[in-house]
Amino acid sequence: MANIDNKALYNIGYGLYVITTNDGKKHNGMICNTVIQQTSTPLVVSVTINKTNYTCETIQNTGILNVNFLTVNTPFSVFEKYGFSSGRDVDKFADMQVKTSENGLAILDSYINAFMSLKVEQSMDFGTHIMFICAVTEAEVINKDDSMTYAYYHKNVKPKPQSKPVETASAEAPRGYMCTICGYVYEGHPLPEDFVCPLCKHPASDFEPVE
Amino acid sequence: MANIDNKALYNIGYGLYVITTNDGKKHNGMICNTVIQQTSTPLVVSVTINKTNYTCETIQNTGILNVNFLTVNTPFSVFEKYGFSSGRDVDKFADMQVKTSENGLAILDSYINAFMSLKVEQSMDFGTHIMFICAVTEAEVINKDDSMTYAYYHKNVKPKPQSKPVETASAEAPRGYMCTICGYVYEGHPLPEDFVCPLCKHPASDFEPVE
Repeated sequence: MANIDNKALYNIGYGLYVITTNDGKKHNGMICNTVIQQTSTPLVVSVTINKTNYTCETIQNTGILNVNFLTVNTPFSVFEKYGFSSGRDVDKFADMQVKTSENGLAILDSYINAFMSLKVEQSMDFGTHIMFICAVTEAEVINKDDSMTYAYYHKNVKPKPQSKPVETASAEAPRGYMCTICGYVYEGHPLPEDFVCPLCKHPASDFEPVE
Repeated sequence: MANIDNKALYNIGYGLYVITTNDGKKHNGMICNTVIQQTSTPLVVSVTINKTNYTCETIQNTGILNVNFLTVNTPFSVFEKYGFSSGRDVDKFADMQVKTSENGLAILDSYINAFMSLKVEQSMDFGTHIMFICAVTEAEVINKDDSMTYAYYHKNVKPKPQSKPVETASAEAPRGYMCTICGYVYEGHPLPEDFVCPLCKHPASDFEPVE
């Protein structure tokens, strides 16, 4: 039986984006890394989103979304704002002067080097996620800053854990478990086997014990 | 009518990989940037490949492929070797001692930080390309080198054009046209409207005149 080390998949390269949508009542935004150009003629882009995200539901209802391309200058606060809470509970654009593209959806006013507006033409159900296959209806380059990558975020933007991971079995039980993907800390021991990170939705296998 | 600037899509973040396959007669490899993890439970990865590539045909016939994750140390010669010729014409692994994974496909012996073996479970036809939706059957981290990104390749690895692009309409017709994606130069003028880059398959709209 061949060995499957999930960590090999961490080396896949991604950019990082804020996907903006509007449920008819308010603008919303979420952090996403699964944007990919599928073909050039015609211009087809796919975006894969976890079904538990409010954005997924909104896209299914409205058929449109914007992709805001984050730059390397994006501070952690932007990831906290769009990534660490749900548009079901909070209005992420409250008290903001919102700039919009022709489809009426929000465009971030800073930390992006481009945006594109997408219209869903087809979707594919992957169980936990839906891949939206989209036509591009508007696209603009905003500046020449470098794009933020997932690797750059992990190396330079995400705060380092306050406590060091337990390397070997220790006499004392760990204080909790940290999600190696987004940095969320689960307080307590043991970590339930079916635990799913409430922020990035990764499974218990992506958590490390912290002392 | 909203404006669509194709150049906005150049800011999408990608990694770069060598996809290895075997047609039953010989090993083959091609450069690819469209690898993405779709879900974690189960582990599902998709890879999109242009139909004109021999690798596409081979994957359709065999149902298996390896993804070799290139590192930032990869020299241009590796991109030339796997990206600038077709396995229909040349044996890219001739005279090499080939290391293989459990599925019998080649694993590169240098410039990679991980590999994974994939088994096609489903495929989706995108016109010019096919997206293969795959289960992971083997995966291994090889070292901790940083992954090569498409942006890093364009900035640091791809040779700079020998001649400068024509900024404005000039009295003289351009000597030729350079593909801004891979650097291929078409000699002659004008560039046919339906021209497709023989190396990376991008359309005439991705070419710039060179003097």
